[in-house]
Amino acid sequence: MAEIPVVAKVLKLNDELAAMNRLALADAGVRCVNLMGAPGCGKTALLEATLSALAGKLMVGVVAGDIATTRDAERLIAHTPHVTQINTGGSCHLEAHQVRQGMDHLPLTDLDLLIIENVGNLICPVSFDLGEGARVAMFSVTEGHDKPAKHPSVVLAADLVILGKIDLKPYVPFDESIFRAYLANMRDNLAVLPLSATSGEGLSAWISWLTDFGAGSSGFRVNLSI
Amino acid sequence: MAEIPVVAKVLKLNDELAAMNRLALADAGVRCVNLMGAPGCGKTALLEATLSALAGKLMVGVVAGDIATTRDAERLIAHTPHVTQINTGGSCHLEAHQVRQGMDHLPLTDLDLLIIENVGNLICPVSFDLGEGARVAMFSVTEGHDKPAKHPSVVLAADLVILGKIDLKPYVPFDESIFRAYLANMRDNLAVLPLSATSGEGLSAWISWLTDFGAGSSGFRVNLSI
Repeated sequence: MAEIPVVAKVLKLNDELAAMNRLALADAGVRCVNLMGAPGCGKTALLEATLSALAGKLMVGVVAGDIATTRDAERLIAHTPHVTQINTGGSCHLEAHQVRQGMDHLPLTDLDLLIIENVGNLICPVSFDLGEGARVAMFSVTEGHDKPAKHPSVVLAADLVILGKIDLKPYVPFDESIFRAYLANMRDNLAVLPLSATSGEGLSAWISWLTDFGAGSSGFRVNLSI
Repeated sequence: MAEIPVVAKVLKLNDELAAMNRLALADAGVRCVNLMGAPGCGKTALLEATLSALAGKLMVGVVAGDIATTRDAERLIAHTPHVTQINTGGSCHLEAHQVRQGMDHLPLTDLDLLIIENVGNLICPVSFDLGEGARVAMFSVTEGHDKPAKHPSVVLAADLVILGKIDLKPYVPFDESIFRAYLANMRDNLAVLPLSATSGEGLSAWISWLTDFGAGSSGFRVNLSI
């Protein structure tokens, strides 16, 4: 199709800018997570609980992506002053240059951790490296147990899978063993953390993961070609 | 940005193919709905309930779009033999040529209604006219009441909004008055149908809408430029 060369060029430029982000984060000693999930899967609620749990332990910055509104940043600013909202103006994903603009508004050298909350979309964000050190794919029990099979790209790219809203399990037809079987079918040893930002169940494992990831190495993915 | 001319060309070609779909559907006397919503918002569950309710009343065909798997078609085939699954192979939306391929596998002249279940995505599908007569934007209470504000394009393009999973309202922090206020802020007189495919509540209004829409006119949108 005629668009492929142009798309390839856009992705190549993005990769170069992502590499620059990765270098800037490494220089500042900031580990970085790219959180991806469907609209309404609970990303912002999880970040509210996360910022609250990490208060006094880690200095956390957030770059929040959305098509429109500053609602996510408004929710998160109650927990950390280091929040930047990126409005993509219709675009379905964050790109590296937008994250850099967000980073430029944050005191990087003061931060331990940068969390990028991507645009609510299980598909497009995965094609764009942002300079992160780890990628987290978030699903929720209300979406149904078949979503990993329907969205293989985000599973193949993830360093961790979060299964959110487990407090709602009694009320929805969600079979966690089927959900895990779909994941295991695609990836060996991909960690899955079931949790609820509402009840707090499972949250400590997520906080431990965030505190520790990349601690044994430089904390930064070197080969993130996808 | 360098990609704009190519994207414009792709959209123009899509519009021409959509016009051909619209003509083929009109010739066959088939009304057509394009159902759009986030991953796991309940599109397939709603279609299962819809096909069951319309059995013996309307002959319904379905073109189901997904990135991967034939799971939706497998669920729907229990209710109608006229189901085609389109696997987009990674693409985040259905395009008109794919819907035409799906239509070519269905006995159009026998059908009263064609329902297109778009790829689970609140963003990208809205840019692609498929030849439908009406567009339905589906949200669910588990996604939170702010989703219309965060996804204005799908609201602006919709002929009807469905609010699904209302059986879960007691368990989630969803305020329907805020949800409706966001919609009213963008559109006057946009119909909203709250329903639950699980409990059946609100389903009859949706069935009536499907049975009646476009009945007074040709049933086909003429100017669907977006």
